[in-house]
Amino acid sequence: MARIGIFDSGVGGLTVQRALLEAVPGADTIYLGDTARVPYGTKSAATVTAYSIRNARVLQERGIDLLVVACNTASAVALPALRAALPVPVLGVVEPGARAAAAASRSGRIGVIGTAGTIGSGAYQAAILALRADALVVARACPLFVPLAEEGWTDPDDEVVRGVVRRYLDPLAAERIDTLVLGCTHYPLLKAAIAAALPGVRLVDSAETVAAEVAALLPGLAGRTSTHQFLVTDTPEKFLAVAGRFLGRPVDSAEHVDV
Amino acid sequence: MARIGIFDSGVGGLTVQRALLEAVPGADTIYLGDTARVPYGTKSAATVTAYSIRNARVLQERGIDLLVVACNTASAVALPALRAALPVPVLGVVEPGARAAAAASRSGRIGVIGTAGTIGSGAYQAAILALRADALVVARACPLFVPLAEEGWTDPDDEVVRGVVRRYLDPLAAERIDTLVLGCTHYPLLKAAIAAALPGVRLVDSAETVAAEVAALLPGLAGRTSTHQFLVTDTPEKFLAVAGRFLGRPVDSAEHVDV
Repeated sequence: MARIGIFDSGVGGLTVQRALLEAVPGADTIYLGDTARVPYGTKSAATVTAYSIRNARVLQERGIDLLVVACNTASAVALPALRAALPVPVLGVVEPGARAAAAASRSGRIGVIGTAGTIGSGAYQAAILALRADALVVARACPLFVPLAEEGWTDPDDEVVRGVVRRYLDPLAAERIDTLVLGCTHYPLLKAAIAAALPGVRLVDSAETVAAEVAALLPGLAGRTSTHQFLVTDTPEKFLAVAGRFLGRPVDSAEHVDV
Repeated sequence: MARIGIFDSGVGGLTVQRALLEAVPGADTIYLGDTARVPYGTKSAATVTAYSIRNARVLQERGIDLLVVACNTASAVALPALRAALPVPVLGVVEPGARAAAAASRSGRIGVIGTAGTIGSGAYQAAILALRADALVVARACPLFVPLAEEGWTDPDDEVVRGVVRRYLDPLAAERIDTLVLGCTHYPLLKAAIAAALPGVRLVDSAETVAAEVAALLPGLAGRTSTHQFLVTDTPEKFLAVAGRFLGRPVDSAEHVDV
């Protein structure tokens, strides 16, 4: 048996779990959404690291063989501390996303969008430049994208959606990027609107890349019946109301935990 | 001496403190911004109540004579629990805001906007109807207003600002409200844009009303030199960067506390 622990600041990490379930269908999973303290993207690296360690300990107590940090902000600022604190392998989403972007770009002009915490950390920028020294990385925080996605305002023909998306992305278009990293788990919900603002630009969603890396670490599980557990730090109602939309399959129950 | 404790989920409550400093200039204050767990407006009543109690205890340990709950969401869901837990008077912003709205409206058609938590609690709606049984209260959560205000996108002539504000407020205009309660501490920053979308509608900011109530409870402080302390649960840098804009006077230092 192999059991994957996944944590995120809230519900967005279910897009990473969705990719994992497709790539490693035989693995058991336990997901923790820190819904009582969401979001992480506006908070300091010290606070995000402290919360990440507490989340990881809860998952560790339940027994996991591998930890996936689905939250981009936590991946950007807390990975070294998590690797020092846990006895199991820890994978973040930043390195896989950077790798996919470095491989996908022809011109080397690469955009990265994410929360203020992710962009401010410089983690994506550093990871891309470490892989491809000739790259020009243009990074931008897009604080309104998460509330837009959570409000369900994602239609590319909606004038409010189009206005917000262009306000953030026109400067990236002016830099003639050919690849854009969607550096936040919520952003794939806005993919159509982002694509409309950046025609011809390749969009990189790190969920798929990290799932492929996990599949390489956990081979031989095909055909197994797997179990999936969900933990949340706020009361479960709101999580359950939207979880299915993010995961792409029904989520019937979630357990409340104090961290 | 009289020392007022004030707490909020973050920096927005400084608009309430600003009104307090004008109404009760001789009072000492101690402000706690729960910046590590902000926002409260998207979280359950149980979690917001637990956080509110912990914030109040930190302030109580520092010595306060009166507690002002500057956060609308905490005022809407946690006031009874706070009053049961604390030995000092506790004032929220919902009752004063409801009172001001009930007094200001001619037609009795009153709008209320706030976070999902505040609107979902029904606290403003109940408080207004208790004061004025003939009122028609139209309430709406506006989740994008806080990130708009924090992004500094508040210009009423900005097409994105106008688009978001009209998306939320056009249904209230259609209900022919004559008074609107700004039921979130961030919303006064969007006052000009809100006024442009609702011409002729009276805007009620509960900060001023709660400040007047505190002044009535703490008379005889005029002329005293007062001291003001700031506590935050995340690291202080980001709070200090924006606090002056919300408070209307410089904030030089804030102490980090764990709650």
